[in-house]
Amino acid sequence: MSGQQLSYLALNLALYDNLALLSRAVARYPDPAEALAAPVPELRALGFEEDRARRLGSRGLLEAAEKEFDRLGENGYSLVTLGDVDYPFLLREIFDPPCVLYCHGRREALGGPAVAVVGSRTPTPYGRAVAERLAEDLASRGVVVVSGLALGVDSAAHWGALRGGRTVAVLGSGLNMVYPKEHEKLSARVAESGAVVSEFPLDTSPLAQNFPRRNRVISGLSLGLVVVEAAERSGSLISAGLALEHGREVMAVPGNITSGRSRGTNALIKDGAKLVEGWEDVAQEMPEPLRSGLLAQRPGETPPLPLLTDAEEAVWKTLKPDVPTPLDALLEESAMSVSELLAVLLSLEIKGAVVQHPGKAYRRRM
Amino acid sequence: MSGQQLSYLALNLALYDNLALLSRAVARYPDPAEALAAPVPELRALGFEEDRARRLGSRGLLEAAEKEFDRLGENGYSLVTLGDVDYPFLLREIFDPPCVLYCHGRREALGGPAVAVVGSRTPTPYGRAVAERLAEDLASRGVVVVSGLALGVDSAAHWGALRGGRTVAVLGSGLNMVYPKEHEKLSARVAESGAVVSEFPLDTSPLAQNFPRRNRVISGLSLGLVVVEAAERSGSLISAGLALEHGREVMAVPGNITSGRSRGTNALIKDGAKLVEGWEDVAQEMPEPLRSGLLAQRPGETPPLPLLTDAEEAVWKTLKPDVPTPLDALLEESAMSVSELLAVLLSLEIKGAVVQHPGKAYRRRM
Repeated sequence: MSGQQLSYLALNLALYDNLALLSRAVARYPDPAEALAAPVPELRALGFEEDRARRLGSRGLLEAAEKEFDRLGENGYSLVTLGDVDYPFLLREIFDPPCVLYCHGRREALGGPAVAVVGSRTPTPYGRAVAERLAEDLASRGVVVVSGLALGVDSAAHWGALRGGRTVAVLGSGLNMVYPKEHEKLSARVAESGAVVSEFPLDTSPLAQNFPRRNRVISGLSLGLVVVEAAERSGSLISAGLALEHGREVMAVPGNITSGRSRGTNALIKDGAKLVEGWEDVAQEMPEPLRSGLLAQRPGETPPLPLLTDAEEAVWKTLKPDVPTPLDALLEESAMSVSELLAVLLSLEIKGAVVQHPGKAYRRRM
Repeated sequence: MSGQQLSYLALNLALYDNLALLSRAVARYPDPAEALAAPVPELRALGFEEDRARRLGSRGLLEAAEKEFDRLGENGYSLVTLGDVDYPFLLREIFDPPCVLYCHGRREALGGPAVAVVGSRTPTPYGRAVAERLAEDLASRGVVVVSGLALGVDSAAHWGALRGGRTVAVLGSGLNMVYPKEHEKLSARVAESGAVVSEFPLDTSPLAQNFPRRNRVISGLSLGLVVVEAAERSGSLISAGLALEHGREVMAVPGNITSGRSRGTNALIKDGAKLVEGWEDVAQEMPEPLRSGLLAQRPGETPPLPLLTDAEEAVWKTLKPDVPTPLDALLEESAMSVSELLAVLLSLEIKGAVVQHPGKAYRRRM
């Protein structure tokens, strides 16, 4: 644990219940330690209540953060903070990114190219089947499927993705309060190959107000969002609105106009969302070179030998086929910025030329 | 029967099997009598075979046309030719309009604002139900539903429209060769309030090559075309292509991506066709003032008192509430061209301010 991670954790503990205030503090103090050391009047001027301002610099808060961090370790969880080099770069782009993500499972799954698959908590058998199939098809091609671990479409998407590859679940509660209860097994399965993440402290209950925030993280992590089934005026349509605000692709699966569960998705398509019949339609909406990389793959086949850009080839040559090289070492050897290097590694991964290992280390695919 | 009608009928009898040649002759000789009197070398230069060129000026052709015309009368059919003032003005706009339409039923139905509803000959129960419902909803609002009298979606559209209002069936065979046989009763029902039309001589068999021509008339008569269900690479998609060529709105009803019968319609939507969930979506795509007129109506209610434009009000004032005034008389009284006047009458009809009577006569609605 770095001191900066602990500072972010403390800041989040003190402010997680007020996202607007938390975002303001993060914007005002790029170093979270500064926020914790800020004079009370300064914090008051920023909109802090007196109690909260006093708590920020308190010994009690730091102790609580240390205790929370110890519990994280005991559970085998890790912490991804805004200060970490592997904080998901798409999530960083949104207006109010979480300053910490509690992570159960493989944090490197957060760095993969991701697509959200969401929808009704009470889907028809059609919606459930489509979510499963689409998620499996995407995951088996290296796309990380992000969803909300909810009943219905979300869980179908996670289960489908698990058959094909990696999936990420974003919770509206703390990692120790998996909701709904019956998805505890699913949550554990997701964490084996992917990750279950939450911006809420470990013991946070699944309060209703947490779910819009959960939805913004689902969209924030993803290049695009596919709504599989949704009634009119449903939460999934709000998620679609968030994705639009985040500048992400909004896609929807059509359905019979006689089905209430397809009313929301058909309406999205009428409003300009891309109609999705299968993974190829999702691939078409991805930015290059991801798009070409995905479409060049054949199911069940080894991806073809990829054509690399000059930058990609340069990075690829520094990698070994046997031992993974950590990101830090790669960064030293290259003339690129972290974000440039991560983008190149991402596209190498998609092209099937590079394999990512735990701890943000990379090797050539053999 | 006018001499010009007989000339068109003769021209059609001689050339109906070769649409390209027929269209060329019609373009070259705006008066069909000129075509019939044209010197053989002139016709040869236009692409006529020797035999066909000789037949054009023959006594035999004229006699055949007179006989065909008599048979039309015996069957209670009428003839709509390019020279008639009530030739459907939208159909006139296409590249190769038929020079005659044999008409069984009420020819004035061809003048109503029309939307085509077409689709698979082997629909699912979903497709059949949607076609029926959509057609009924449109017809009950004064829209003429055009289709092809085929099995499946076409017949569902006709039956649905009959419950609500008027429908027009376009045949790929002669009026005395209704195809498929089991739709003879449907054909008779369509003709009671609407019309069954064909550009083919009375005894023409339903040859495969006739159906693309039938499809161009369906699209030509219509402001827009709705495909309800269609497989990939199906005839309905060709009809949609024709409608695009004709500059008409192309619309499609979405369906479950797991249904082969919705693959064509979902693909159309992906390619830019408007997604249709109900009659309101069709109404939205109609040109003004039809669009507003339709959307202002409430089902089961008398249409609200319409707001008329100056031109509409001027025409409306010349009409009587009891006795219908023929189009010719209206034309004399107005300063408008035929097409302007017809457009104004059309929009008055849609607004519910005017009722059209057989023989293109109009009265105020009481």
